[in-house]
Amino acid sequence: MASARQVNIAIIGVGGVGKCFLGQLSQLAKRRPSPKLVLSYISTSKKAVYSSDYAPIDIDDSLSTLAASSQAPLSLPDLVEYLTASSHKAVLIDNTSSQDIAEAYPSFLSRGISIVTPSKKAFSGSYQLWKNIFSAADKSGACMYHESSVGAGLPVISTLHDLVDTGDEVTKIEGVFSGTMSFLFNSFAPTSGSGGKWSAEVKNAKELGYTEPDPRDDLNGMDVARKLTILARIVGLEIESPSAFPVESLIPKELESVASGDEFLARLPEFDAQMDEVKAAAEREGKVVRYVGSIDVATKQVKVGLQKFERSSAIASLKGSDNIISFYTKRYGSNPLIIQGAGAGGEVTAHGVTANLLRVISYA
Amino acid sequence: MASARQVNIAIIGVGGVGKCFLGQLSQLAKRRPSPKLVLSYISTSKKAVYSSDYAPIDIDDSLSTLAASSQAPLSLPDLVEYLTASSHKAVLIDNTSSQDIAEAYPSFLSRGISIVTPSKKAFSGSYQLWKNIFSAADKSGACMYHESSVGAGLPVISTLHDLVDTGDEVTKIEGVFSGTMSFLFNSFAPTSGSGGKWSAEVKNAKELGYTEPDPRDDLNGMDVARKLTILARIVGLEIESPSAFPVESLIPKELESVASGDEFLARLPEFDAQMDEVKAAAEREGKVVRYVGSIDVATKQVKVGLQKFERSSAIASLKGSDNIISFYTKRYGSNPLIIQGAGAGGEVTAHGVTANLLRVISYA
Repeated sequence: MASARQVNIAIIGVGGVGKCFLGQLSQLAKRRPSPKLVLSYISTSKKAVYSSDYAPIDIDDSLSTLAASSQAPLSLPDLVEYLTASSHKAVLIDNTSSQDIAEAYPSFLSRGISIVTPSKKAFSGSYQLWKNIFSAADKSGACMYHESSVGAGLPVISTLHDLVDTGDEVTKIEGVFSGTMSFLFNSFAPTSGSGGKWSAEVKNAKELGYTEPDPRDDLNGMDVARKLTILARIVGLEIESPSAFPVESLIPKELESVASGDEFLARLPEFDAQMDEVKAAAEREGKVVRYVGSIDVATKQVKVGLQKFERSSAIASLKGSDNIISFYTKRYGSNPLIIQGAGAGGEVTAHGVTANLLRVISYA
Repeated sequence: MASARQVNIAIIGVGGVGKCFLGQLSQLAKRRPSPKLVLSYISTSKKAVYSSDYAPIDIDDSLSTLAASSQAPLSLPDLVEYLTASSHKAVLIDNTSSQDIAEAYPSFLSRGISIVTPSKKAFSGSYQLWKNIFSAADKSGACMYHESSVGAGLPVISTLHDLVDTGDEVTKIEGVFSGTMSFLFNSFAPTSGSGGKWSAEVKNAKELGYTEPDPRDDLNGMDVARKLTILARIVGLEIESPSAFPVESLIPKELESVASGDEFLARLPEFDAQMDEVKAAAEREGKVVRYVGSIDVATKQVKVGLQKFERSSAIASLKGSDNIISFYTKRYGSNPLIIQGAGAGGEVTAHGVTANLLRVISYA
């Protein structure tokens, strides 16, 4: 392998995941002499750093260089041209959750620019965009990797691809796909002890930083629905959108339209009795309630919502905010292949991005 | 991607895993037009099929073609020459557990021939062979993949490589690495109920095909020790051999030298009281006993043997003959990344081989 090989890296987004990724990229670039990893472009939505001769941007200083920069970001078509004009292979790292950037993936991929992203946007929107993205990648040979879009750095997407690509028959996928929902139900309905009131658990989770600023953005189930959409499409189901299957929202109808997350939290105790009854119903069967997503491949049924589980089951025994994903396949028979661990957090999400980048550069 | 690309495949070994792999390869070759997968060599230890012009061997008929063949296998140096003389990229699939073939890996790899194998032999023998193998692969750019050497098709090796290669700090690896030991202890010391007598469980496991013909080949712990050797080396520990760390054998000293597996089984009941005491000691702490392997990276301690676990722990709750592997890392914090599922069996072992082959050909 010639040491002259080089890969140009363009990064958009330096939020929580983006910052962790920069740290991992810095280590990686120091450890691996070949191919040479050159940061050639970095931007937020407001600022950017790049140069017409693709001069390497020092990774360790990139955030302060970016803060001091007076360059505006390139438009997406201009970024495609910028990366294509270099003689080196290029990778776009999209650490945003921007729908606009997601829509532009096909234009990068069709020009041979590989993309790595933890975002769900491109893969859980319209089915047409999904098709456009993967047909563009197929045609050009560019890589489109998004391991961290489901279960953060857990090897969920790569494992599912291996099962499908090697010809196994995936029959069912089931799991806890949201760190927030995991944390809430592990506290609200623990396998031993009685747990707290629902509204208190939601409040506590928000204070600990486990929820979105408005907890309704977790409780509506759409984050889980988007992840299920991605997995279902990988096994070959043509899911039109995350709204194309039943998703149980945990937002009481009466609180859907209250103005703020704070008002929502203030009024949530009015509905504790309803959630207590959900918990009690499970307890009467010796079970606990959990918020899960499942895909039944044969019947093409995808659904997201509350289900009861035996206390001794792997799903019930989950700890903290962990995710768990079970793949039932023909080869694996009655006991599924299970992957479990942290499914959110900056470092583990960035880990999936870095692992994907490693795969891209191994082809360089 | 030009459709003229071709990968020549050479297979040695058509036992249980080899037969399942042929089935998966047949499907794969039909589904993927590019690169063209050409079976160019197939052999047992006694017979082979190949031709000087690398004429494709029909995969579906390959076993009967092999049975009818009067060709002797090529010597390993001649096989290297045969595969190198073709203008196409070549992959050796070693579905044997031959030490001789393992010793020859460096000579294949240094000539650019990639290798995929489920065998542990090459990676759990001398540390010098390990170094020779991976330095040969590094220099030539050939791939050396062996996912199924630990946990069969479970994504254990690839996940550990991703953690290490992306710069995470693996602090501890712990798990149940033997399908046989898993089955034995899940029956002998279940989380609920009292389980059977040890000798009866071993006899039952043998009758169900879960043990080697002589169960002592499982009970000596060396299979687990070999797997731990592989994982420890991947995280950077220079383990000289599987005998370089403590391995607890479950063969009573008095039965180590009895002539046959049958005699061993006949006399095993004499030692049931000892194993009952092991079980009772765990029960007095409210725990169950399991046969596990662990690697403490900081202290470089590798060990294999019996340990007590809380009944609610993931290791205690394992089902059937499943494996479970927990990776504790800096990024994942207190809750490990866990992979669980069948760790033995023809189809799932072949799955790991096929997944590795897919990775090799994606570079072609």
